[in-house]
Amino acid sequence: MDTKDFIFMREALNLARVAYGQGEVPVGAVIVKDGEIIGRGYNQVEVLKSLLKHAEIIAIEEAIKRLGAWRLTGSTLYVTLEPCPMCAGAIKNARIDRVLVGARDLKNGACGSYYDIIPAEFGILEDEAEDLLKSFFKELR
Amino acid sequence: MDTKDFIFMREALNLARVAYGQGEVPVGAVIVKDGEIIGRGYNQVEVLKSLLKHAEIIAIEEAIKRLGAWRLTGSTLYVTLEPCPMCAGAIKNARIDRVLVGARDLKNGACGSYYDIIPAEFGILEDEAEDLLKSFFKELR
Repeated sequence: MDTKDFIFMREALNLARVAYGQGEVPVGAVIVKDGEIIGRGYNQVEVLKSLLKHAEIIAIEEAIKRLGAWRLTGSTLYVTLEPCPMCAGAIKNARIDRVLVGARDLKNGACGSYYDIIPAEFGILEDEAEDLLKSFFKELR
Repeated sequence: MDTKDFIFMREALNLARVAYGQGEVPVGAVIVKDGEIIGRGYNQVEVLKSLLKHAEIIAIEEAIKRLGAWRLTGSTLYVTLEPCPMCAGAIKNARIDRVLVGARDLKNGACGSYYDIIPAEFGILEDEAEDLLKSFFKELR
């Protein structure tokens, strides 16, 4: 992990805050290739009424469109919450090389916390990602 | 499994044949609720240049649009090939109650064959689904 990783994870956190503002579970994701962001996404399941519209899927859709190809080999994904099986499977299918995760999801995380679909690096801005989720669910109650 | 299950799996096989005709790995899926098909899909990864466009995802997208809600509780999915982790995760997120599978995928199947994301019923028109995949990959070589 280096400075760039923090910059991109911070951008993912900013996107998570946009989701928060729309009443969505605050998760954000960015995909980076050759030092450039090629896909951004934040959770929009309720707004777009689709279980498919997780942050990672939206970021992947944008990256695919941008590159004009469905293989995202050579890219890195930054996401504020450990991907669910659907997103981890999509990341795997997309051939994304590296995944950095903020908060762990012990109940549904598919990077080793509950399921074991793809490997990921943990620990980057973890507290901020967790605090954001905690304050969202606290407000909800 | 009853007669209806065979009818719907046969429809999924017909959709898989449409994918075959387009040069795609032949996989088809239908989603049924209250005896009615509410979503159809066949693999379009190459045609639509998106790793997300597996048969199951396309069928889920159609069902969501039709119902105007992202929870597909009370529905059954028929798919000719065991779902990958992405699709199994999407099926789980969609709250689909029952999944019937044609052919097993020993290398990537997420209904117990390789990963264990969701349960499924196997054995329905399995030989036909397998033969279709085998003849596709034989032609490819």
